[in-house]
Amino acid sequence: MSMLETSIPGHQGGVAYSVADASGRPSSARTVVMKFGGTSVKDLDRIRIVAKKVKEEWARGHRVAVVVSAMSGVTNQMVKYCHDLNPMADRAEYDAVVASGEQVTSGLLAIALGALNVPARSFQGWQIPLMTDEAHGCAAIEGVDGTALLKCLEQGIVPVIAGFQGVDEHGRIATLGRGGSDTSAVALAAAMKADQCDIYTDVDGIYTTDPRIVKQAQRLDRITYEEMLELASVGAKVLQTRSVGLAMRENVRVRVLSSFVETDDNSGTIVVDEDESVEKKLVTGIAYSMDEAKITIRQLPDEPGIAAKVFGPLSAAGLNVDMIVQSIGADRSTNMTFTIGKGEEVQACKILEELRSEIGYGDLNTSRNVVKISVVGVGMRSNTGVATTMFRTLAEKGINLQVISTSEIKISVLIDAEYMELAMRALHTAYGLDAGEGA
Amino acid sequence: MSMLETSIPGHQGGVAYSVADASGRPSSARTVVMKFGGTSVKDLDRIRIVAKKVKEEWARGHRVAVVVSAMSGVTNQMVKYCHDLNPMADRAEYDAVVASGEQVTSGLLAIALGALNVPARSFQGWQIPLMTDEAHGCAAIEGVDGTALLKCLEQGIVPVIAGFQGVDEHGRIATLGRGGSDTSAVALAAAMKADQCDIYTDVDGIYTTDPRIVKQAQRLDRITYEEMLELASVGAKVLQTRSVGLAMRENVRVRVLSSFVETDDNSGTIVVDEDESVEKKLVTGIAYSMDEAKITIRQLPDEPGIAAKVFGPLSAAGLNVDMIVQSIGADRSTNMTFTIGKGEEVQACKILEELRSEIGYGDLNTSRNVVKISVVGVGMRSNTGVATTMFRTLAEKGINLQVISTSEIKISVLIDAEYMELAMRALHTAYGLDAGEGA
Repeated sequence: MSMLETSIPGHQGGVAYSVADASGRPSSARTVVMKFGGTSVKDLDRIRIVAKKVKEEWARGHRVAVVVSAMSGVTNQMVKYCHDLNPMADRAEYDAVVASGEQVTSGLLAIALGALNVPARSFQGWQIPLMTDEAHGCAAIEGVDGTALLKCLEQGIVPVIAGFQGVDEHGRIATLGRGGSDTSAVALAAAMKADQCDIYTDVDGIYTTDPRIVKQAQRLDRITYEEMLELASVGAKVLQTRSVGLAMRENVRVRVLSSFVETDDNSGTIVVDEDESVEKKLVTGIAYSMDEAKITIRQLPDEPGIAAKVFGPLSAAGLNVDMIVQSIGADRSTNMTFTIGKGEEVQACKILEELRSEIGYGDLNTSRNVVKISVVGVGMRSNTGVATTMFRTLAEKGINLQVISTSEIKISVLIDAEYMELAMRALHTAYGLDAGEGA
Repeated sequence: MSMLETSIPGHQGGVAYSVADASGRPSSARTVVMKFGGTSVKDLDRIRIVAKKVKEEWARGHRVAVVVSAMSGVTNQMVKYCHDLNPMADRAEYDAVVASGEQVTSGLLAIALGALNVPARSFQGWQIPLMTDEAHGCAAIEGVDGTALLKCLEQGIVPVIAGFQGVDEHGRIATLGRGGSDTSAVALAAAMKADQCDIYTDVDGIYTTDPRIVKQAQRLDRITYEEMLELASVGAKVLQTRSVGLAMRENVRVRVLSSFVETDDNSGTIVVDEDESVEKKLVTGIAYSMDEAKITIRQLPDEPGIAAKVFGPLSAAGLNVDMIVQSIGADRSTNMTFTIGKGEEVQACKILEELRSEIGYGDLNTSRNVVKISVVGVGMRSNTGVATTMFRTLAEKGINLQVISTSEIKISVLIDAEYMELAMRALHTAYGLDAGEGA
């Protein structure tokens, strides 16, 4: 059995931060970036509540910058407009249309802050500027000029920044792709050398697992960047993977907390360096993903290079293969099982069927009725018992493991979808994460 | 009786046009600016129809640039959001919010053109740039750099420009005020030295009067800038006054036509120089305005400078007085009657009541039950019978004239609102404008 872990998608290259003149910054004031997602600014009432939250921070003497998403529903409407006019719409035009949502929210929140006598001004990506590459629709941030923002902060003005958007070198609007506002917030926090980047969302922090499935799930006070990165990459949807990777590289202290309840300095979950993490549990969190389909190719010739023959063409087509297992069949041929995003399954099968005679395999089966369960924790590095606990716990419940993959701080298994809740609850108990067992 | 005509509001100062390098322009191709208002782009179906109209022009080998308004209803929604959050909202933030509507339409139309295989790209005000002053919410255009737009035209690409918006010298978005997209279109046509600026709207041209009131109203093939300017300033809502003034100064040939019917080179009404006008009627059009209230101040001291005492404070408060008549009262005192926008009536009365003892007048009455009827025509310059015809026609119908004002090519009278339709129809007939009498 061979195991393979693909790289986490969406990681960016280097980001350049520049500040023309930051000499006037008083070192005593604390700089905080507050980021609010779509549900937090979904209507005028919610925008007024956000304005109050921002005022509280500002009134404490902090230097506050805000990053906002579009009002929830607006981006989907804009995407639909573009798609209805032309499914193959020019991505730069798509960006001009879709970025308007954040523009509106940034202006409205600045107005709401003005109504509370908090001096504020909106910034669009091109006004900062937040420079991106030309990959419209899913652009990567190339640099952030913090000069204008820091000038506002020095004057006690709250910059309200449209998230999700920047400008390319040709002066055209570019968006960062879905969830890009988290990445904007982290990049802007790095450019302003902020002490903290608070991501306000509709949940009150990172949990040991999904509380909708496991009632005993507990909120974590702290989690390491690497754990958060692994959890985000295997299905925890609270933070976008890219934003966590950027925070780790730039060492931005990120906090996840709720915009729907009263919060204080101890609210939410802080994402920190491993050095800062005080919790030394073996497993920090358990995540699941229903987004993958399983493909099995049987009766492959058992010869060197067969994996390259199968996966090369998929990779060339831009399809991301996740978990892979190769096993010996009865007749000395070999079988290959792997997972791929459900949205890419049809295309992958088409490619493989066209190559059937060339590769020389027997048959090809697919299943969408699978779930990937992952346990994550930095404690795994120094303890070998984590995998054993996982395999034993699932075996006791009669759950068959179809594929297994591991990384330094993560173990993932693919199981039949109907066992999802059972497996999650059993593992949560087995790793001592249930509420009442101390967090 | 004294008569006074105030200056037409909204006239702009000089606009600077610059082009970095226009040497590559082929002189043979015709350059046309097509402007589409909110009802013409109100939904995706209408945007597809607009794209087809643009393609027709483009396919004829013309160099075509398009200017668009927001989808109808969107701007009102954005204005309402801003007002609900803070009636005294920062105008620069208001502009960031409101300008988003045109941004969306420009991107969507570029996408719709792409679907028809017409190369197109959107331009926001700041991308051109179209420079404005800092009067956010009602900014004046200070200059247009035609370089990027002309480069598109040379390459056969259709620039789709967000109307109504520009950018101030600090890089902040500024809007031109209601109806500003017409002004954008004319300024852009001037910057591109366009041969014609076609304003597509929901009517098929300029009429001798409002066809909803006078069934015999006829569409005009041509009208002069000055006539259009006077008609726009007295209530004809087809073109914004500012845009007509700009077209006159920059000598931009403007055509008004419908986006809801098939059109050709002879459709609509062309606004031209007086030299080009072939129609030599005494009166070209009749307009009405219900937007004014009448204020009468009685028993004023009959002394020099009394008009300045009354109108000085109103002007200082930014209130625009339109028609004025002063008459001698019975007791050798004087009466003053004038009109003011209905929206400014309350404020004007408040100012005048506070000054009552200082000015020393008897009483103050107001009426909102009045209508201003105006007849306009360049033929008046050389013919003195126009006023006589107006007064006689209205007298025959028993309509009392409350205030009269004139300009070189216009006569306006204020009458009781209930006589509006009667007066309009009688005048339309009296000046030989009824359909069937030759246009």
